[in-house]
Amino acid sequence: MAKPLRVGLAGVGTVGGALARLIQRRRDDLVARTGRDIAIVAVSALSRSECGPGLEQAAFYNDASALAANAEIDVFVEAIGGAHGPAYAAARAALSRGLAMVTSNKAMIAAHGLELATLAESHGAALAFEAAVGGGIPVIKTLREGLAGNEVRRVSGILNGTCNYILSRMESDGLSFDACLAAAQKLGYAEANPTFDIGGFDTAHKIAILASLAFGTKIDADAVSIEGIESITLADLAAADELGYRIKLLGVAERTAKGVEQRVHPTMVAKSEPLAQTMGVLNAVSIDGDAIGALTLVGPGAGGDATASAVAADICDIARGHVGPAFGRPVAALVDAERVPMQRHEGGYYVRMSVVDRPGSVAVIAKRMGERSISLEAIMQKRSDLGAAASEFVPVVLITKATTEASIREALDLAVGDGVVRKKPQVIRIERV
Amino acid sequence: MAKPLRVGLAGVGTVGGALARLIQRRRDDLVARTGRDIAIVAVSALSRSECGPGLEQAAFYNDASALAANAEIDVFVEAIGGAHGPAYAAARAALSRGLAMVTSNKAMIAAHGLELATLAESHGAALAFEAAVGGGIPVIKTLREGLAGNEVRRVSGILNGTCNYILSRMESDGLSFDACLAAAQKLGYAEANPTFDIGGFDTAHKIAILASLAFGTKIDADAVSIEGIESITLADLAAADELGYRIKLLGVAERTAKGVEQRVHPTMVAKSEPLAQTMGVLNAVSIDGDAIGALTLVGPGAGGDATASAVAADICDIARGHVGPAFGRPVAALVDAERVPMQRHEGGYYVRMSVVDRPGSVAVIAKRMGERSISLEAIMQKRSDLGAAASEFVPVVLITKATTEASIREALDLAVGDGVVRKKPQVIRIERV
Repeated sequence: MAKPLRVGLAGVGTVGGALARLIQRRRDDLVARTGRDIAIVAVSALSRSECGPGLEQAAFYNDASALAANAEIDVFVEAIGGAHGPAYAAARAALSRGLAMVTSNKAMIAAHGLELATLAESHGAALAFEAAVGGGIPVIKTLREGLAGNEVRRVSGILNGTCNYILSRMESDGLSFDACLAAAQKLGYAEANPTFDIGGFDTAHKIAILASLAFGTKIDADAVSIEGIESITLADLAAADELGYRIKLLGVAERTAKGVEQRVHPTMVAKSEPLAQTMGVLNAVSIDGDAIGALTLVGPGAGGDATASAVAADICDIARGHVGPAFGRPVAALVDAERVPMQRHEGGYYVRMSVVDRPGSVAVIAKRMGERSISLEAIMQKRSDLGAAASEFVPVVLITKATTEASIREALDLAVGDGVVRKKPQVIRIERV
Repeated sequence: MAKPLRVGLAGVGTVGGALARLIQRRRDDLVARTGRDIAIVAVSALSRSECGPGLEQAAFYNDASALAANAEIDVFVEAIGGAHGPAYAAARAALSRGLAMVTSNKAMIAAHGLELATLAESHGAALAFEAAVGGGIPVIKTLREGLAGNEVRRVSGILNGTCNYILSRMESDGLSFDACLAAAQKLGYAEANPTFDIGGFDTAHKIAILASLAFGTKIDADAVSIEGIESITLADLAAADELGYRIKLLGVAERTAKGVEQRVHPTMVAKSEPLAQTMGVLNAVSIDGDAIGALTLVGPGAGGDATASAVAADICDIARGHVGPAFGRPVAALVDAERVPMQRHEGGYYVRMSVVDRPGSVAVIAKRMGERSISLEAIMQKRSDLGAAASEFVPVVLITKATTEASIREALDLAVGDGVVRKKPQVIRIERV
């Protein structure tokens, strides 16, 4: 049998702790699968007392960079989190020594992935981050290896369980966004400060990582256009339902004739699509490739055990010596992708607006749409939500055929200027997944 | 750059032809991904004229075993099909020489996988068969690598697009089994002799392969209990719909306290499950693991391009030198699994039967169920399908709570013997995926 693979584990919280238990529980099978023993021989944490059972024999450090400098480890597993702090410093230290590194840290990979991959390559070290996107779902391996023969055209996914839980609850229970957010917080699905999740920033990190793997482009997280789910109302969900859609927060990376679009926004997805059927805290990713057509992976996007499953898979690949470039192609082969600003995005749009309740209002809107060459697929005028209460506005929902973001925004601005539409209509993109 | 990987391709039909085109089309990216050129340098087929463009320079053989003996190839790709004929002979020839081998041949792997894996291991050769199960879906890689840290409890899947197309059409269009089979044949989804697909035998090959990968057991295709979809009627689909289920032909491999169940049968799947939502010719596989929970993969289970996508992924792994044991663990580590006969299967059951239309009939059935300790979850007595026509029978549908196959069969035999139920009630297993 080959030499044991000696793991240094930085962080023994939810993910690190679950990983330590997994490696103990599955020890015999991991040996059978990889041909060698896998042992956590050193850990770092704030204090020794944080470490669960089975880690008593491991060398202890209270600094991740000191752990990464340990001469007795083969793999540095980073389970601390944070884009720029101790995790990043330790990652650089480990890779600079030629240590293999495994991380679940999407923020760090989104911000520094290219630099870390360059460092890894120049030192002949492995850099693996399956757990950074989609929790336990092996989406990185699928893009990097399973679909290696494909030209990927699009990756779109539900990559944040918090948002999907909130939108699912709003739909199933008819509760407001705020009530569902509070429920998510109570269940531990959302942080006390939920902005990172519900604002779409977490999804943006993840789609930036997937875009690089899908298209062979340099990771470019700053290019992601981001919209969160805060503005979604029950009226939107009801209209979506009536029109045959569900509203999901999607991360989308798409290769178009104009360049690579990277965007995160609430999206109308046809109910028949696997992504629309993914409810609760589950994640799902659909990948369109020229050979395979469409492939969808659905599974748990978070949680200690599921995330540890992904980390363990990376460790097994390293134990087997199955190590390739971090982003699927060598850094030198990664290209700069032309950024496509959101204004140039083409697609169908859902618009919900409050229209002045007098004859001719809708005709004015339709005229403004026509001037921008926007074809309408459907128009629904509803009685006011306010019921018996008098209102000068009535809610109108439009569905457009394919147009550009710039055109729809201009047409709506003009209609607002005409005095027939109240300011800030709700605009939701429709995605044919 | 490393030496080119020289591929010998046996068979230039749907899959082989698509693979040749893929390798030409994606050449530059394959070099970027694997660090070496991948070239088809030799082919075998019935005649040279079968070979599409781009293969003119390849050495030609009209015998696959002669191709496998070619000293100038590194990888032998088998795209002929058939469990025991020329494909098998050529596979043995290639592996015995230490050549890497890639195949899409589920029948051969189901029948000879253990022997071929042994041959591969003893000669230090790779044996890869991603395309044998689920077409383009990377389910083999997911079980072998992506979920390497998991104890897998169950794999269940829609693994035959023909059956799923027929069941989907029956449900969506209210057409009979025979009409939908004829439609599938017309569209090229079903063979002129459809028994292999609709009888469940194709699914059985595939679930036997997945069972070995999931549980680390020796492949044992003879242990699969097989039932096809021929007996499914519109009455079953209507009852399923009313009860919140869809009927799918599933392959299921499950580790139970009694041993490993391997079974193929029409199955009631709750509509909320991803497998129930997989319609038409798509395939889907759900995997339950102790760390990940449940993971579902949905994609095209057949077709030249999708299958070639899987073959190409295997070739890329070989080009990178990322080669492990064919079934995820070395042959010596694979264990014999205790077979669980179908009679010992435990689960819920759907029973649709014709009951004699007189007072007390249902009471007799309920008594027979009670004697076998079978609890009923639901009972639906419907007006006869025959409408106005007089009938001595009325259709009754039962849903049981968990019981054993033996118990339900015995109870039904007794009820038939009692003269209250017509012979051969329809029995469909309910699966909590």
